[in-house]
Amino acid sequence: MQIVIIGSGNVAYHMAKAFSLKKIPVLQIFGRNGEELKKISEELDIPYSNEYLENADLYIICVSDNSVESVSQLITKKDCLVAHTSGFLPKEILKGAYRKSSFYPLQTFSKSKELDYKKIPFFIETENVGDKQLLFEIASKISENVMESSHEKRKYIHLTAVFACNFVNHLFARAKEISDSQNIPFNYFLPLIDETVQKIYEIEPKAAQTGPAVRNDVRVLELHEQLLKDESLEIYKTMNHSIQKMYEL
Amino acid sequence: MQIVIIGSGNVAYHMAKAFSLKKIPVLQIFGRNGEELKKISEELDIPYSNEYLENADLYIICVSDNSVESVSQLITKKDCLVAHTSGFLPKEILKGAYRKSSFYPLQTFSKSKELDYKKIPFFIETENVGDKQLLFEIASKISENVMESSHEKRKYIHLTAVFACNFVNHLFARAKEISDSQNIPFNYFLPLIDETVQKIYEIEPKAAQTGPAVRNDVRVLELHEQLLKDESLEIYKTMNHSIQKMYEL
Repeated sequence: MQIVIIGSGNVAYHMAKAFSLKKIPVLQIFGRNGEELKKISEELDIPYSNEYLENADLYIICVSDNSVESVSQLITKKDCLVAHTSGFLPKEILKGAYRKSSFYPLQTFSKSKELDYKKIPFFIETENVGDKQLLFEIASKISENVMESSHEKRKYIHLTAVFACNFVNHLFARAKEISDSQNIPFNYFLPLIDETVQKIYEIEPKAAQTGPAVRNDVRVLELHEQLLKDESLEIYKTMNHSIQKMYEL
Repeated sequence: MQIVIIGSGNVAYHMAKAFSLKKIPVLQIFGRNGEELKKISEELDIPYSNEYLENADLYIICVSDNSVESVSQLITKKDCLVAHTSGFLPKEILKGAYRKSSFYPLQTFSKSKELDYKKIPFFIETENVGDKQLLFEIASKISENVMESSHEKRKYIHLTAVFACNFVNHLFARAKEISDSQNIPFNYFLPLIDETVQKIYEIEPKAAQTGPAVRNDVRVLELHEQLLKDESLEIYKTMNHSIQKMYEL
């Protein structure tokens, strides 16, 4: 079983590392950015190239959604399985005569942040049962949580993740902007943030809501608005409106 | 030192419990809602009343921002210290001839969720040094993290908390609404949510941003919008706009 990972970004790095840690041999890591590939190659002891794509049985494409289609056309071999790792794209975005699949890890990846791979849910979609078994076998070496998912469902998983992760992180960024502006150390807020997340393990998020909007504390809302401007003010208004709609206030 | 806690909601309950656990005697828990008071009283073995307010040296008002002023007028004693627990209000909201103070625990409180009180930052503001020492002494029995804070600064701490906690929880609620609509179990997203928070212990939130908006993946953004409606769509647009502004995309 010869495996090639394509890409040199956050997902490619962590995919290669997860394979490495589980002693799943990777024949090559391939991409455009020679410098990044070299770093990954040296850390994980995997051959790399930005010129010559090796012959393999399985190619895992870990590039940004915009590039998946064009990258998929670099694979000219027919008798092989190609997987993309996008939460958003259908497997048919892959353009070639090979067998197509999706291999989606639901996680946020940054190169500088270590991850516990076994907790990452993997969502798999293939053209046939044999390929499904193969990808399940590989994913199950990495993760305890491997599932089949249609593209239709995966799109919504991805969209939910944008709310629960990307937007949450952006709220942290805007929150830090506010506290920085008053020289308030952001680490004051870490116990609060931890608790906000721990709560949803025990209480439905809808039932766990606190704060001035759900209390319909109009005076606080108005005075808060005076402390804000631009995008933070827009977020403030939009979120409060949405909270008040959800609780019919 | 006679202490009375006023209120029967989430903050009053946890304040009384934190005092109880540290064997700080509470003379009485006082409020309007006799039924809730009785429950707290029975759990924590603290006398309660919804009629007669005991004579005390320190009253800690744990009621919603809207009610602090009117509740503060129930205290007719002069030689005592009164503290409110609001992040938002000035200590001058307290209307009486007593000494005024603020005793703000930065945390999100739900009765059904246990808390590690020692990690909760307490922000204290008083009229004089003696009262400051007193409140520091009490708060330091509960928490490892007790600080002085002006009302001006506290307002911004509270506002930051709204972004980092209340709005984050609302994003979880809207995210769950999306996943529920497709019968996708919300617990799939818990490792992702945990990692989103763990990241900010190591990486600045601004540097940790991932997702289609920061990659300026316009096609994904457009197609996601087609899957959304009403408040979730508004949140989607507002957050993406704010992300793109922050990164000058």
